[in-house]
Amino acid sequence: MHLLISFSVCLLLAVTAVAQKPHPCKSPPLMVGRASVMYPKGQLFIYERFSYDAWGQRIRVRAQGVDHDHPFHEDVLMLFRERVMYEISYRNHTCKKRALKVRFQPSEIPQNATLQAQVIIGSSSRPGQGLLVNNWIGDIPEQQAKYSMTFTEFGCLPITSLYHTDQTGWILSSFFDLVVGIEDPQEFIPPKFCDKTKPVDEGDEVVTDFFEALLKKDDH
Amino acid sequence: MHLLISFSVCLLLAVTAVAQKPHPCKSPPLMVGRASVMYPKGQLFIYERFSYDAWGQRIRVRAQGVDHDHPFHEDVLMLFRERVMYEISYRNHTCKKRALKVRFQPSEIPQNATLQAQVIIGSSSRPGQGLLVNNWIGDIPEQQAKYSMTFTEFGCLPITSLYHTDQTGWILSSFFDLVVGIEDPQEFIPPKFCDKTKPVDEGDEVVTDFFEALLKKDDH
Repeated sequence: MHLLISFSVCLLLAVTAVAQKPHPCKSPPLMVGRASVMYPKGQLFIYERFSYDAWGQRIRVRAQGVDHDHPFHEDVLMLFRERVMYEISYRNHTCKKRALKVRFQPSEIPQNATLQAQVIIGSSSRPGQGLLVNNWIGDIPEQQAKYSMTFTEFGCLPITSLYHTDQTGWILSSFFDLVVGIEDPQEFIPPKFCDKTKPVDEGDEVVTDFFEALLKKDDH
Repeated sequence: MHLLISFSVCLLLAVTAVAQKPHPCKSPPLMVGRASVMYPKGQLFIYERFSYDAWGQRIRVRAQGVDHDHPFHEDVLMLFRERVMYEISYRNHTCKKRALKVRFQPSEIPQNATLQAQVIIGSSSRPGQGLLVNNWIGDIPEQQAKYSMTFTEFGCLPITSLYHTDQTGWILSSFFDLVVGIEDPQEFIPPKFCDKTKPVDEGDEVVTDFFEALLKKDDH
């Protein structure tokens, strides 16, 4: 009997230990938040507010930034399912429509990522003074890219993302002020004045790279 | 009577509002933790464990890093009150003593720093998924330096520090796994084999810069 109890306890501990090892995870499908993006090679710094809908595969980004010392402002709606991207200007009541030939990338840790470290940002000495996060690294062979991503242990929320290719150099994105849920679902509907926009011209207005779409680096 | 109550409530709200504005703060005097330091201009990357005693003005750092692709290991004890620094090697049982002619810099936000932003790393949507931090910026005219520091709102714990001079470029330090208190007070006492070390030679072994002491950038 004693042996059986000991064995059960050992088994329980083993199962708990397996369960406690961090696993690649997926962020909540609906989020709003802020992000800063540093892209030193492109001399680009962006500060943005975003709404993220992984169910509908829709992202709205309102960004302001500095590109080679030139400040800029962008308001972009990406509808990945419809394969369309809108560049919206409320001031000018104009809308630029581009074909979006790129797959939606959900906010997640890829299944083949390697756990680098679990750390506490801040301190675990008192409640409210620290945040448990996991750092994951990996490669994306088809893009010849390396990444390092830090997500919270609880909630799988993005904290930082480092992305590198020989072409782009390092791109550092930091996320903060995340709220789970969508504050305003209308964010994902193009404004009325976009209806008049001519259909997408397949010729010259094609976006084929996810980071290009987010960084708009060839536009400025 | 109603007027008096209303006035009291207003006063209370006003006092609370003043108290809730973030103020420059000082970290707990005793801390242990880990840090990573990136010093791109010096092509130096350091990962360290440290013990910090602001009361005794003592810091112990065990660092490993890469300097121009060369890996290195360092074990340094800085006693700022005694103005002495030890470079310790347990493997070789050797001790190098250097004069430390630099003021102790406590972990704190300077009184004249400017609050840049208060943000939540992660999310406030659920407990345990976010960390409230304040970002402060400022100048140190005598060092012709700029800094940007992020500390927790609760506990005043360091999260990141960016330090810049024209000479050094940007130095990025990130702190994590902080524990309030000292795990082993003996960390601040030089090991026995250091007793035999010759007294500090005032001639050539002088450290005059706090960051030089921490980064050891001219040694490798």
